[in-house]
Amino acid sequence: MGKVICAGLGPGDPELMSVRSYRAIQSARHVAYFRKAGHVGQARTIVNGLMPDTAVEHAMEYPVTTEIHFSDPEYNRQLSAFYDDWADRLAELSQSEDVVVLCEGDPFLYGSFMHLYTRLRDRTQVDVIPGITGMSGCWTATGHPITWGDDVLTVAMATLSEDELTERAAGTDALVVMKIGRNLPKLRRALERAGRLNDAWIVVKGTMAEQQVHKLSELDGPVPYFSIAMVHGQGRRP
Amino acid sequence: MGKVICAGLGPGDPELMSVRSYRAIQSARHVAYFRKAGHVGQARTIVNGLMPDTAVEHAMEYPVTTEIHFSDPEYNRQLSAFYDDWADRLAELSQSEDVVVLCEGDPFLYGSFMHLYTRLRDRTQVDVIPGITGMSGCWTATGHPITWGDDVLTVAMATLSEDELTERAAGTDALVVMKIGRNLPKLRRALERAGRLNDAWIVVKGTMAEQQVHKLSELDGPVPYFSIAMVHGQGRRP
Repeated sequence: MGKVICAGLGPGDPELMSVRSYRAIQSARHVAYFRKAGHVGQARTIVNGLMPDTAVEHAMEYPVTTEIHFSDPEYNRQLSAFYDDWADRLAELSQSEDVVVLCEGDPFLYGSFMHLYTRLRDRTQVDVIPGITGMSGCWTATGHPITWGDDVLTVAMATLSEDELTERAAGTDALVVMKIGRNLPKLRRALERAGRLNDAWIVVKGTMAEQQVHKLSELDGPVPYFSIAMVHGQGRRP
Repeated sequence: MGKVICAGLGPGDPELMSVRSYRAIQSARHVAYFRKAGHVGQARTIVNGLMPDTAVEHAMEYPVTTEIHFSDPEYNRQLSAFYDDWADRLAELSQSEDVVVLCEGDPFLYGSFMHLYTRLRDRTQVDVIPGITGMSGCWTATGHPITWGDDVLTVAMATLSEDELTERAAGTDALVVMKIGRNLPKLRRALERAGRLNDAWIVVKGTMAEQQVHKLSELDGPVPYFSIAMVHGQGRRP
């Protein structure tokens, strides 16, 4: 009788994964990971050279990422069938052997694994190993602490409406915004309206070799979906 | 010429520290850590057995923790002198050798190290290794993901006023509350007023051997200052 082990990988630098995830990957018999069809995938890239040569790889390729808007019922239908299918396969595999599922960042913070987890937890043993979040990797990269004293931190997705992003940015001490990509112009307008654009930073590929750290107001051009923007808190400090 | 390396330790379980922190500690010549006078200290406890026998330990003992309220100018004066003094000592030590400073959780998220960091960064090289946050360890311990889809996550300190806590709890999808201790009755009232008490959880000593996970409404008795409460988001999921 095996189990499913979800290994949080952290923000991107392989040395920032936990000792427990590292060991789980180094001794894995089966390794599953999400990716966009036709791409190697970020999770798989992070563990390059860490898995045993004998490990069996299971690439779980999303049927859709941003080709259909998430408000379209078809988006939901395709993803739901995809998670059902992979939950069945992992549940069956884990009857006899352990399966390590890779998950970038921290699995329980906006992670895709959560959709497998809810489908698996009543059928097989599932162990979740937390990870350093992408946002921790990114605020560390800016060289400025994100929160001090009693600062309130708000984490919001750039997929929200401009009005809601504006309100969230104005109503918090520290702010983190994820899922940026094509939402960048909207986020920029929201930060401007909230009076916080000049204090905002954006980190692209945080902790990885290609890491870029910019003041958001000075950024030109598009950024990847998984970029992270932030405004640091300025709270109490002795 | 040495440097100061702040090693994020993660939420408490030593296997949840990053590979990079683990290696820094295993090869350390000098290890400094915060603690309350008269206590071993949580950071020191986490690295028990990991440091070389030859490592020189530097216990940085807070002159005050909760004996004086943080709004009293004396609290600020004593802590400020304490951080000034240790920044001087670490800056001098790092002229010739590396010094590893231990920091529970993630150093740049409400960490004490930040107060040394701002005093050191123009005087010596400072490397900060991020860590798994205490809150990640705690929401993983509940067995429920904290955020889904477009959920907004608010992180607030229980040291805020009851009115502000109520407003924050009512105005977010997912909520994390830290620094609890004697603020628990106030937090409970705020969650009740916000209509969220029955969905709230509290985790004491998350990821450690003595871990306790409770529905907050069912908890009796006091909890430590570093307990973490939360309300999970219920956002979009396929």
